[in-house]
Amino acid sequence: MKVSKGRSFLFRIPEGEEILSFINEFAKRHNIFIGTVYAIGTLKNPKIGYFKEDRRQYKIMELKGTYELVSLMGNISIKDGEPFAHIHVALGDSDGSLYGGHLVEGEVFVAEVFIQELLGEPLERKPQKNGLALWDAEE
Amino acid sequence: MKVSKGRSFLFRIPEGEEILSFINEFAKRHNIFIGTVYAIGTLKNPKIGYFKEDRRQYKIMELKGTYELVSLMGNISIKDGEPFAHIHVALGDSDGSLYGGHLVEGEVFVAEVFIQELLGEPLERKPQKNGLALWDAEE
Amino acid sequence: MKVSKGRSFLFRIPEGEEILSFINEFAKRHNIFIGTVYAIGTLKNPKIGYFKEDRRQYKIMELKGTYELVSLMGNISIKDGEPFAHIHVALGDSDGSLYGGHLVEGEVFVAEVFIQELLGEPLERKPQKNGLALWDAEE
Repeated sequence: MKVSKGRSFLFRIPEGEEILSFINEFAKRHNIFIGTVYAIGTLKNPKIGYFKEDRRQYKIMELKGTYELVSLMGNISIKDGEPFAHIHVALGDSDGSLYGGHLVEGEVFVAEVFIQELLGEPLERKPQKNGLALWDAEE
Repeated sequence: MKVSKGRSFLFRIPEGEEILSFINEFAKRHNIFIGTVYAIGTLKNPKIGYFKEDRRQYKIMELKGTYELVSLMGNISIKDGEPFAHIHVALGDSDGSLYGGHLVEGEVFVAEVFIQELLGEPLERKPQKNGLALWDAEE
Repeated sequence: MKVSKGRSFLFRIPEGEEILSFINEFAKRHNIFIGTVYAIGTLKNPKIGYFKEDRRQYKIMELKGTYELVSLMGNISIKDGEPFAHIHVALGDSDGSLYGGHLVEGEVFVAEVFIQELLGEPLERKPQKNGLALWDAEE
């Protein structure tokens, strides 16, 4: 889908906030219905998911401790009538080893976020047979 | 090189497509000669490369199974007269461990892609002595 | 903070340059005071950091050899009166394993960089009690 550029936001999420909720609330508060999200920082006790196709649901992994947020990449679209952020993260431990997957939650120690609003036709996640909520695919 | 912004595209690649071919074909179909590419999703049986400087070629690694596409980052420019996507990926397994490198190929389970077209002087990859095809370097 | 779009730059850093210095010098030379930075490529002997909250400083890890630069993500703002790039990286070794954290330094073999200048109110890093230099948090 072709989109045009809307507003841009660069900001730091306050320490202690839950990162995914904060981004979703930010999108709702600013009426961002389509967008891209990128961030770096440091997260505590992040939970990440790996989608189990056979079970049609995510396996959730709880990482204990503090991790460098090496990359946070995702998008905003509509799910259940509201702005919804779908985000993947790479997380580094104190030895520099990386872990990652689908972002489920994480406590912010530092999060420097760039959100680019996009404007276009409504982009909506719809439940699929495989258990995921996805946009219509590009033809 | 200074560039200006062209069109923006946010879309999902259909399940079953080979991701790198799809992005290259998308660029050709839409006449995108310069651009940036970002994506998240899930890939099956991805192949990644590590450039061996001494052999002047990539070592190819075949990952078996399904991986969270934690980050896909790259660019589009001209190679051999056609739009060409150069892309690196980070991939997460079912334990949250990450693997990655130069994207060689991967079967799409889910791929949510953002492409930003850029406009400017022709940006072309030219064969180098080291075995890579690169742009002229910034002075 | 809401920002607007400034200039865009897509370029290759010459082989042999130290990547973080080059990006900082690029920002200074072009008077980029706010921005986002993304890159892929290959780095030699990169040094990465993990922030130790209890010591209020980074633990530095020196990686030996050549690594695929799988993702470089960061931002530019003002620190000590000058443009300053804060960057995190994911790095892949010859087996496809990933390492990463806060970018301290790295010798460029290849670095293909996209910098988006942003325009807005001055965005400045200020020393915090926790040992980091951070922007004011979003309210």
